[in-house]
Amino acid sequence: MDYNKVSLFIIGSELTRGVIKDGHGQLVSHELSNLGYEIRRIIIVPDDGNIFSQLNEYIKDSDLIIFTGGLGPTCDDLTRSVIAKSAKVPLEKNQEAWDELYKRVGDKIYGANESQTLIPQGFVRIPNPKGTAPGFRGFITRDDGHKVLCMAMPGPPVEMQEMLYHQILPYIAKLKGGVELGRTEFSSFLTPESRLEEVCQKCRVGNVEWGTRFQNLRISLYLTGGTSDERKLMGENLKKNIGKNLLVDGDQHAMDMLIDLLKEKEKTVSTAESCTAGWLAKLFTDKSGSSSWYWGGVVSYADEAKTKLLNVNLDNNSAVSIPTAIAMAEGILKSSNSDFGLSITGYAGPTGGDKDNPVGTVIFGFAGKGMKSQAVSLKFNSYTRDSIRKRAVVASSILALEYIRGASLLDIVCDWQYI
Amino acid sequence: MDYNKVSLFIIGSELTRGVIKDGHGQLVSHELSNLGYEIRRIIIVPDDGNIFSQLNEYIKDSDLIIFTGGLGPTCDDLTRSVIAKSAKVPLEKNQEAWDELYKRVGDKIYGANESQTLIPQGFVRIPNPKGTAPGFRGFITRDDGHKVLCMAMPGPPVEMQEMLYHQILPYIAKLKGGVELGRTEFSSFLTPESRLEEVCQKCRVGNVEWGTRFQNLRISLYLTGGTSDERKLMGENLKKNIGKNLLVDGDQHAMDMLIDLLKEKEKTVSTAESCTAGWLAKLFTDKSGSSSWYWGGVVSYADEAKTKLLNVNLDNNSAVSIPTAIAMAEGILKSSNSDFGLSITGYAGPTGGDKDNPVGTVIFGFAGKGMKSQAVSLKFNSYTRDSIRKRAVVASSILALEYIRGASLLDIVCDWQYI
Repeated sequence: MDYNKVSLFIIGSELTRGVIKDGHGQLVSHELSNLGYEIRRIIIVPDDGNIFSQLNEYIKDSDLIIFTGGLGPTCDDLTRSVIAKSAKVPLEKNQEAWDELYKRVGDKIYGANESQTLIPQGFVRIPNPKGTAPGFRGFITRDDGHKVLCMAMPGPPVEMQEMLYHQILPYIAKLKGGVELGRTEFSSFLTPESRLEEVCQKCRVGNVEWGTRFQNLRISLYLTGGTSDERKLMGENLKKNIGKNLLVDGDQHAMDMLIDLLKEKEKTVSTAESCTAGWLAKLFTDKSGSSSWYWGGVVSYADEAKTKLLNVNLDNNSAVSIPTAIAMAEGILKSSNSDFGLSITGYAGPTGGDKDNPVGTVIFGFAGKGMKSQAVSLKFNSYTRDSIRKRAVVASSILALEYIRGASLLDIVCDWQYI
Repeated sequence: MDYNKVSLFIIGSELTRGVIKDGHGQLVSHELSNLGYEIRRIIIVPDDGNIFSQLNEYIKDSDLIIFTGGLGPTCDDLTRSVIAKSAKVPLEKNQEAWDELYKRVGDKIYGANESQTLIPQGFVRIPNPKGTAPGFRGFITRDDGHKVLCMAMPGPPVEMQEMLYHQILPYIAKLKGGVELGRTEFSSFLTPESRLEEVCQKCRVGNVEWGTRFQNLRISLYLTGGTSDERKLMGENLKKNIGKNLLVDGDQHAMDMLIDLLKEKEKTVSTAESCTAGWLAKLFTDKSGSSSWYWGGVVSYADEAKTKLLNVNLDNNSAVSIPTAIAMAEGILKSSNSDFGLSITGYAGPTGGDKDNPVGTVIFGFAGKGMKSQAVSLKFNSYTRDSIRKRAVVASSILALEYIRGASLLDIVCDWQYI
């Protein structure tokens, strides 16, 4: 059986009212295109009584319909009943789904939530490790006897993506005559998407394909197709080219990696920020429990703030210089009771800077109890103020990790040729 | 004639292959919802031979179909021929479109471009000041005699948006029986969307309708329909209910309003942040030129940081208390060379807090040269860590504005019953 004609059915009134922008359509169609499927249409419909009649139209020329949304517990969450009606089967309590949900919410299961344990009779439940509503898959038989595969996922992005990557895509990949759905994920930092594409072209191995997803402070890169050895080889080539620490295995945030190391070593940090003005401190404290790794810091935005709050002497050095970055890191280490001091000073632009240190120059300082201080300078040219500051906090996290591990930061940054 | 059932038809293979994310769907549906139209579906389809049969399905339950894309000069740009075929009319050279295009491209018009001067017979051209492909509007008569209004816009966002705002929306607004397309915009802070909806219900005047758009640190609220007097009255009612300063005219950011005041008075601020840990400082410096209003500050995350960096005495007061917030604001004012000191201390959760000050309690302190210091406490219960911190930085900006103007902050916050 072929599954060449695919429809994506995205359900949510907040989408057709224009309250939020749909992101599922692009993500799912991108992944299915990668697997060689042809998307006939992406349909976005409100949670209302018209879903059933619309679905019956699309079934006519679809072999596979993927649904997102409408699996919540409220009465306007219609996906499961619409699919059941279309398949001409009743909704049925799924015991695994019930047990799973009971474990999660206890007696609150009675009432609205209970509807989330129903799936169309004859359909297979798809577990949802990130939320309360399971997905499901099964067939709707058309009047002409053609069986249309339907797969339903929850709408919240975190839940949908988990189910998509770990259950839906592997299943769909197998439909295409058992092609191995090999997939290797990486997280990439500081390198712009266009450069990453160039490097992937250059490092291509065999039939390995790749794709990127732009996230807030990083890019997710995945390799797919080819053999696992080919993907491994291409990953190694990429790492060599992009530079040590700027491409790591799996789905990782630079700040989380740093925090994990600090927790493991039971150490704390303090910060002295100039151009990033508190952004690094904010990142350190985004997660609960941060007082066990973050002590506090200083935002030394004005030059005078560097002098008054950190005792930095600016008589002989410019505010954006290696000695100033070191003095800032050592200054906060001394005023604080933490194990490491991190500093950032630079020109975020769009105005400012000078000939030697144009806008985009950012200097990172590091000091630690009983350790030699280090500072390195990076240039993030041709970026906006926001993206220079964003790159600066990510770079500081990556460099701090290496500083704490005892590395020479100059050796590390000299490999970073694509930033 | 009613135009209650609207379909958006978005054409582009790069969308169904997932290469780019669609933004037109949200924009157009948002604007049409504002005008009181009900969007039945947003359909995203590839530039291929199936558009015609799909269109014929959607026509069955649409009164108005808006198309974007597929108006380019190449052979896979099918929109104009598909609409003509569906309307059972030929494509016809439009002289104005030809003249317009000739002015723009000269003799290059012969060949592929020339196809862009064709529109379905009987349809009206819609000029495209930003590009080569004109839009058009006209009717497709269904087999049951119902006339479906079709409006086609080009796909490139710059061209589409120009046409949408200047030609499509004004035309569509008039279809609703000549209702005045009045619209009054507000920015709302701290109040959650569900509460804002409640207050709008309560303050409704005449036939005024409303809608909200969730932005990063605020909600845009607009009133539409009714007379301008009715919208004005409803706006005043809303302001009284939501509380002074939490609903302001126009499209404004709390931080921008504060920065404008500081620039006008030529004053600078410094910050002492605990739970928001640098987020307020970052916001102050998001824009270039910030050294003229922002001096610097301290992130006093650990209790010890409050003592060491700000000389706050915690022997008799808890870290989250009115005296501590005042001592923090006065501490940074004293260490700095700025005109005002702002402090934030609170429990962002999810753990921490105590019986009197549960998670969500945030205290805001303000000190100024020659001014009496003030502090107020707010409770942002039942929010996530991220949203408590976000609300805290917005509240601090709004309160700082009032403090600088000489207001009594206690009087102000006692009106904030919906936060």
